[in-house]
Amino acid sequence: MDILQQTIEQITQPDQISMRAMQHRLNQLTKPLGSLGELEHMAVRLAGIQGKPDPKLERKAVVVMCGDHGVTEEGVSAYPSAVTGLMMGNFVRGGAAINVLSRQFGAEVCVVDVGSRLDPTPEGIVNRKVRGGTNNMAKGPAMSGAETLEAIQTGIKTAHELADQGIAVMALGEMGIGNTTPSSAMSAVFTGRSVSELTGTGTGLEQAALNAKIAVIEKAIRINKPDPADPLDVIAKVGGLEIAALVGVILGAAARKVAVVIDGVITGAAALAAFRLEPRCKAYMFASHLSVEPAHRILLEELGLRPLLHLGMRLGEGTGAALAFPLMEAALKLTDEMATFADLGLPSPAPEPEA
Amino acid sequence: MDILQQTIEQITQPDQISMRAMQHRLNQLTKPLGSLGELEHMAVRLAGIQGKPDPKLERKAVVVMCGDHGVTEEGVSAYPSAVTGLMMGNFVRGGAAINVLSRQFGAEVCVVDVGSRLDPTPEGIVNRKVRGGTNNMAKGPAMSGAETLEAIQTGIKTAHELADQGIAVMALGEMGIGNTTPSSAMSAVFTGRSVSELTGTGTGLEQAALNAKIAVIEKAIRINKPDPADPLDVIAKVGGLEIAALVGVILGAAARKVAVVIDGVITGAAALAAFRLEPRCKAYMFASHLSVEPAHRILLEELGLRPLLHLGMRLGEGTGAALAFPLMEAALKLTDEMATFADLGLPSPAPEPEA
Repeated sequence: MDILQQTIEQITQPDQISMRAMQHRLNQLTKPLGSLGELEHMAVRLAGIQGKPDPKLERKAVVVMCGDHGVTEEGVSAYPSAVTGLMMGNFVRGGAAINVLSRQFGAEVCVVDVGSRLDPTPEGIVNRKVRGGTNNMAKGPAMSGAETLEAIQTGIKTAHELADQGIAVMALGEMGIGNTTPSSAMSAVFTGRSVSELTGTGTGLEQAALNAKIAVIEKAIRINKPDPADPLDVIAKVGGLEIAALVGVILGAAARKVAVVIDGVITGAAALAAFRLEPRCKAYMFASHLSVEPAHRILLEELGLRPLLHLGMRLGEGTGAALAFPLMEAALKLTDEMATFADLGLPSPAPEPEA
Repeated sequence: MDILQQTIEQITQPDQISMRAMQHRLNQLTKPLGSLGELEHMAVRLAGIQGKPDPKLERKAVVVMCGDHGVTEEGVSAYPSAVTGLMMGNFVRGGAAINVLSRQFGAEVCVVDVGSRLDPTPEGIVNRKVRGGTNNMAKGPAMSGAETLEAIQTGIKTAHELADQGIAVMALGEMGIGNTTPSSAMSAVFTGRSVSELTGTGTGLEQAALNAKIAVIEKAIRINKPDPADPLDVIAKVGGLEIAALVGVILGAAARKVAVVIDGVITGAAALAAFRLEPRCKAYMFASHLSVEPAHRILLEELGLRPLLHLGMRLGEGTGAALAFPLMEAALKLTDEMATFADLGLPSPAPEPEA
């Protein structure tokens, strides 16, 4: 049995008993029932994921998967491919946005080179390069099936390593100039919606360039004919190496009962691909922010996840996902530290947990 | 000249030069222009508020104004008035939701009794009681004009004391069983919208009780005839002591060039009243979350403020506002710590700041 199939079979449903225990605890706290809204849902879901009534988030990580895209030769990005490598250097020196936020929230940053053109991969970045960038999907498949599987396995391996280190939540991040293009393509194939409805300006295209980007994505889908019912085929033909690796991180994390936090449209496309490979992994996913990229809202709706933060961000790297860390921690701290009605000498307003 | 008028005259426009300097700085950072969305707007606004290109948020506070409401005798709340006092005790012992969040985010909690029925005011709470609860607004004005001014002055005084201690941002919080009722009433008078459109279930009313609450608010407006063009008249007739005090905090903070963060519908009603008294104070306000109370969205729209957090919360105490603290801090940390394009040896993509 291959690693992907084995990982998928390890993914279980969240633990209902722990979820009920957490909901019961929440109902005893000195606040109107349900008044903490999504924070209560987060606490309950984390209890289910970790399989204990008192989940903890002691160690957190942001996993930044890096890859380049052959399709950039079609002019789909406001930046040249070389910026992928420059930003990888920026991650190593701690000067990127994701480094700043990770320091603020006490999270580790794990940067993995699964497919950049940067050679050699700088020290401080995990070198798991499958190949240096994908092929131009406007001219043929972005990757072979074997490369796709290798990239997914890289993500699974990364998730296992982080889980072994005690990481309890992984924010999903990425760096790859041009990668909103495969993300829109994957979204269009998986949801059946039009490319023009799903495609945005990425890091900052003008209108004419946006129209050209849409035409490139439509062409890539037309010539490659990815099969919507076969997620691996979709990832290989119109995806990317870092996107495939993110699919692996999600499945690997779910197999290890670790929560993952979706960032923007690229990690959202990976999340939908992972969901299509194994729907049970959805129980381990949290949405963070709502990006300005139009496909992002559609992807989250498709996954049935509500974004918590409406910040109009479009930066990537896992920045929106990292901003959800203090909210997840707040959910658990409130549960741990708030007084109960009994503490105040009042009867509990809470119904007994349902059987 | 009275203290209110004096405070209003001290409120100035934010400093445009500092705002332009901050925007210029943001444009040099290693990210697509504008890609941090609302975080960039926050950084720019904080620069304007503090009048310096490198604003800081070293000390933060949550101001919780407490008051009781005579209108609770009409059955407008799911909880009895005595819960106001019980929760004030909970604030002192550190067991309320706002205590937990303030500890998490390193903020101080300043609880002020401006109008509760609790007697005596417990140690640990600032006793500035104007009177023990308002009159039943369904039978006449909630307060006299003199009481309203005294409560506003209490808020102004509190803002000055906190500003003197070096507090750079104040989250607005409140505790007062029944206080969504005056908030809906004030919202209806100020916006001209129908009470039924604006009124929600508060801490948890059933449908029949919600209908009764709407009828009570309509009656209060009908018999008191508050003048929408006279904010002090609106606060006195259908407001509350803690709401008046929050109006004072907002105006006092603005006069001292300190940012304020709006929480839910009660602090939102206070914010709109403050804005109607002096529109310049809006430059000092930040929205935090979007509450489930229907008036909240309308109030924020009226103020032209976008909520950052969509958490479906309805707890009050300043809990939603406190959750905005890590976002504001992130905005400033990113500005302080991110590398610039020049650091990576790249030309800056940023246009020169506009004259």
